[in-house]
Amino acid sequence: MNIKFVLKIISRLILIISVFLLIPLGISFYYKEENALRAIIITILISLFTFIFISLLFRNVKENALSTRDGFLFVTFSWIIISLIGALPFYLSGAMPSFVDAYFETISGFTTTGASVLTNIEAMEKSLLFWRALTHWLGGMGIVVLSVALLPLLGIGGLQLLKAEAPGPTVDKITPRIKETAKLLWYIYAGITLTETILLMAGGMNLFDSLTHTFATVATGGFSPKNTSVAHYNSAYIDIVMTVFMVMAGVNFNLHFRFLTGRTKQLLRDSEFKAYLFIFAAATVLVAFNLYGKSYKTLFDSFRFAGFQVASILTTTGFATADYEIWPYFSQMILFFLMFIGGCSGSTGGGVKVIRIVSLLKQGLNEMKYLLHPRGVFTLRISGIPVKKDVIYAISGFFFLYIFMLLLTTFVVATSNNDVFTSFTTALATLGNIGPGFGLVGPTDNYSIYPAYVKAFLCFSMLVGRLELYTVLILFTRRFWKN
Amino acid sequence: MNIKFVLKIISRLILIISVFLLIPLGISFYYKEENALRAIIITILISLFTFIFISLLFRNVKENALSTRDGFLFVTFSWIIISLIGALPFYLSGAMPSFVDAYFETISGFTTTGASVLTNIEAMEKSLLFWRALTHWLGGMGIVVLSVALLPLLGIGGLQLLKAEAPGPTVDKITPRIKETAKLLWYIYAGITLTETILLMAGGMNLFDSLTHTFATVATGGFSPKNTSVAHYNSAYIDIVMTVFMVMAGVNFNLHFRFLTGRTKQLLRDSEFKAYLFIFAAATVLVAFNLYGKSYKTLFDSFRFAGFQVASILTTTGFATADYEIWPYFSQMILFFLMFIGGCSGSTGGGVKVIRIVSLLKQGLNEMKYLLHPRGVFTLRISGIPVKKDVIYAISGFFFLYIFMLLLTTFVVATSNNDVFTSFTTALATLGNIGPGFGLVGPTDNYSIYPAYVKAFLCFSMLVGRLELYTVLILFTRRFWKN
Repeated sequence: MNIKFVLKIISRLILIISVFLLIPLGISFYYKEENALRAIIITILISLFTFIFISLLFRNVKENALSTRDGFLFVTFSWIIISLIGALPFYLSGAMPSFVDAYFETISGFTTTGASVLTNIEAMEKSLLFWRALTHWLGGMGIVVLSVALLPLLGIGGLQLLKAEAPGPTVDKITPRIKETAKLLWYIYAGITLTETILLMAGGMNLFDSLTHTFATVATGGFSPKNTSVAHYNSAYIDIVMTVFMVMAGVNFNLHFRFLTGRTKQLLRDSEFKAYLFIFAAATVLVAFNLYGKSYKTLFDSFRFAGFQVASILTTTGFATADYEIWPYFSQMILFFLMFIGGCSGSTGGGVKVIRIVSLLKQGLNEMKYLLHPRGVFTLRISGIPVKKDVIYAISGFFFLYIFMLLLTTFVVATSNNDVFTSFTTALATLGNIGPGFGLVGPTDNYSIYPAYVKAFLCFSMLVGRLELYTVLILFTRRFWKN
Repeated sequence: MNIKFVLKIISRLILIISVFLLIPLGISFYYKEENALRAIIITILISLFTFIFISLLFRNVKENALSTRDGFLFVTFSWIIISLIGALPFYLSGAMPSFVDAYFETISGFTTTGASVLTNIEAMEKSLLFWRALTHWLGGMGIVVLSVALLPLLGIGGLQLLKAEAPGPTVDKITPRIKETAKLLWYIYAGITLTETILLMAGGMNLFDSLTHTFATVATGGFSPKNTSVAHYNSAYIDIVMTVFMVMAGVNFNLHFRFLTGRTKQLLRDSEFKAYLFIFAAATVLVAFNLYGKSYKTLFDSFRFAGFQVASILTTTGFATADYEIWPYFSQMILFFLMFIGGCSGSTGGGVKVIRIVSLLKQGLNEMKYLLHPRGVFTLRISGIPVKKDVIYAISGFFFLYIFMLLLTTFVVATSNNDVFTSFTTALATLGNIGPGFGLVGPTDNYSIYPAYVKAFLCFSMLVGRLELYTVLILFTRRFWKN
């Protein structure tokens, strides 16, 4: 393992973070938010100092390709360390007096979870609220993939990184070279961001609110600068725009690329995309008709609120336009199910991912064919392409580990004497990077109720969920550290 | 497919059921329970008539070996039809005026679930309570395996039956011949039953209570003839005896056989057995120390109640000596986890089964080795023996389908406007053949709260769970019915 080299790359990420911190710095200056201004300056200085210190200390370290092990180490530790830096503005400004709270909020941002410990969001300085939203945006496409494109100096082959970093079971190569790939994804990401910001502003939102909500949408994060989330605006137009963009953000970015380059036929052949749209549509229809006449008087409103909340939970964004815990139980149940699914692979969404659910369902059905014809050969096809058994094998392992981590997190939450359902949905909402759950962590609640050790463990769960379990958990195996 | 022949075998099972009905007939005669007596006589007459009618109708049908398809059809339909017959005494006597209720209670008995719709159990006639317990006992080892041993006339090769019927992923052949196997298992089952009955009577229980509780224990069923379940006796001796026998009933019966024939070393090599004992011990210790000082004053009582409830839930029996919903949340959480596990394969316990959990955990860890060494070959070993990938493949499919069925059942329960947690644990408790859950179906509640269509679906869930999913679900595939 080449720990020194890994630290050197991470120090460059820290440098990038300090560059992005210049935006909230400007905002704090503009709004004369003194505490925030001072905290952000100190954070930037610490970042710069860390970067220079590590650069000098390891100046003779050879910059060769990263091994697979280095890749895992790099990805996991970059998220942990970047979140440490990212938490400083909240902590040093006094906005969040507990460092655990500040760290929780930051890792929730970078992992695009959107779970908050803030009880009065609007009381926070604007510059800090902007930084909070920006952590979503940076985390969204993966600060790592991002930086692979921005750090051309390193010359990292990088497929092993993408293997560890990119959401979803397999990496569909858009272009043969990883640098080009990252750049393309990045352009698409920026383009979607720009479009949504303009559309929200056209709906009467100011620039600040439009940008912060857009960051939280395209990253499927969920942090809103408003106490009542998107319900604050009570605008059908804004709800619909955000619903559309949440659904877009939950789609594999490779598909966006194909769509933009006119290969629309490929979209219709994509099993995951089709299943994703089907789930969204079916859930929306079921919830809307369940709400109609009970929670909302018009069919339009029923569909508006149903569509928004289904998109918000399915894509693991976590915005709310309604308190779904006072909806009929049937609708709550649908939302509960969606928490087990998540977005598409290669999107900013979290959760198990649609492709895995589709694969396992097909695998479950395939098993029946073998029971009937034990000597038969039945190929499992995804998007028309035969899938190797090893891929299914890996997905099975993933799914089981996911359930295992879910129960482990539930267990830890329950030790602080919380009821089974609150504990379970807390685990589901953090591991799946969703944000709100049910019970004491419902859409109108927050995570401030938990003691520090639970919050710390939830930071771990959010990270494990975001980095597709293995990337983090592998560091806990003896084999990883053996030469 | 040979539907006529399948019906012919099922009619012989009906004949066996009518023989077993002679016991409650005697009891109803002894206690002068007129309604029950009349109902049981009518049931026996219907059974005899059905048997004779089918025997005459299909007297020319050839009795050759059953195909795999026939096996699935036979197993699933035998449970459905036997439960129809078994429900008649409850229904015809007027004890349960709704046939859906009577059917629910019966299939809950035969599948050894133990979920009840009775609100006042002790108000039921003794003969019917005995029949209710007897359905557990008959279902316990599988009325089918049982009848394979008792119907030597058929000459069924039967491995395909055991494949469909026997709990657990693979069938470990005790003896090469299925008939012999069934007989041996049957002796062990009878022996355990006799021992527990004697031990319970030694603790002051009367014959009737001892027998009915023993039936419910060895079948990991959970029906008690008392309203307050085993808590009724409030006896440490009885609690301990039943804890030991519940744990025994949750062990693979092959291991009982090996133990009795002196091959104790093999027990210690068995991965599932070791994991099962570990889970039981660890959960008991955790719950006991959590209860100590909070729910119970002495450490002895803490261990007594913890051990009983852990055994009851882990083995999917479902007896209660305490209302665990007023225990500290941490203990509730442990019990909630156990609901996801279940007993060992080849036992009377339900659930996912320990062997599957162990296999999937090992598979999840194995996957990490592949991430580190993509070209390596890592063998997965269970009980020291390398496991073929196809077995893991099948287990993965099973696990996913299990979660899928769990959510589907939750969904159906929620349509009757029940809260998410009640719906979820109802699904868990029926699909896993446990009995009690949490919320409105907690240990002091029952299933009478549900409308008929929910009860009907829960019958389906109990059956699907008991017959290891595939056996039933395969009948819903188009391929099954294609020639």
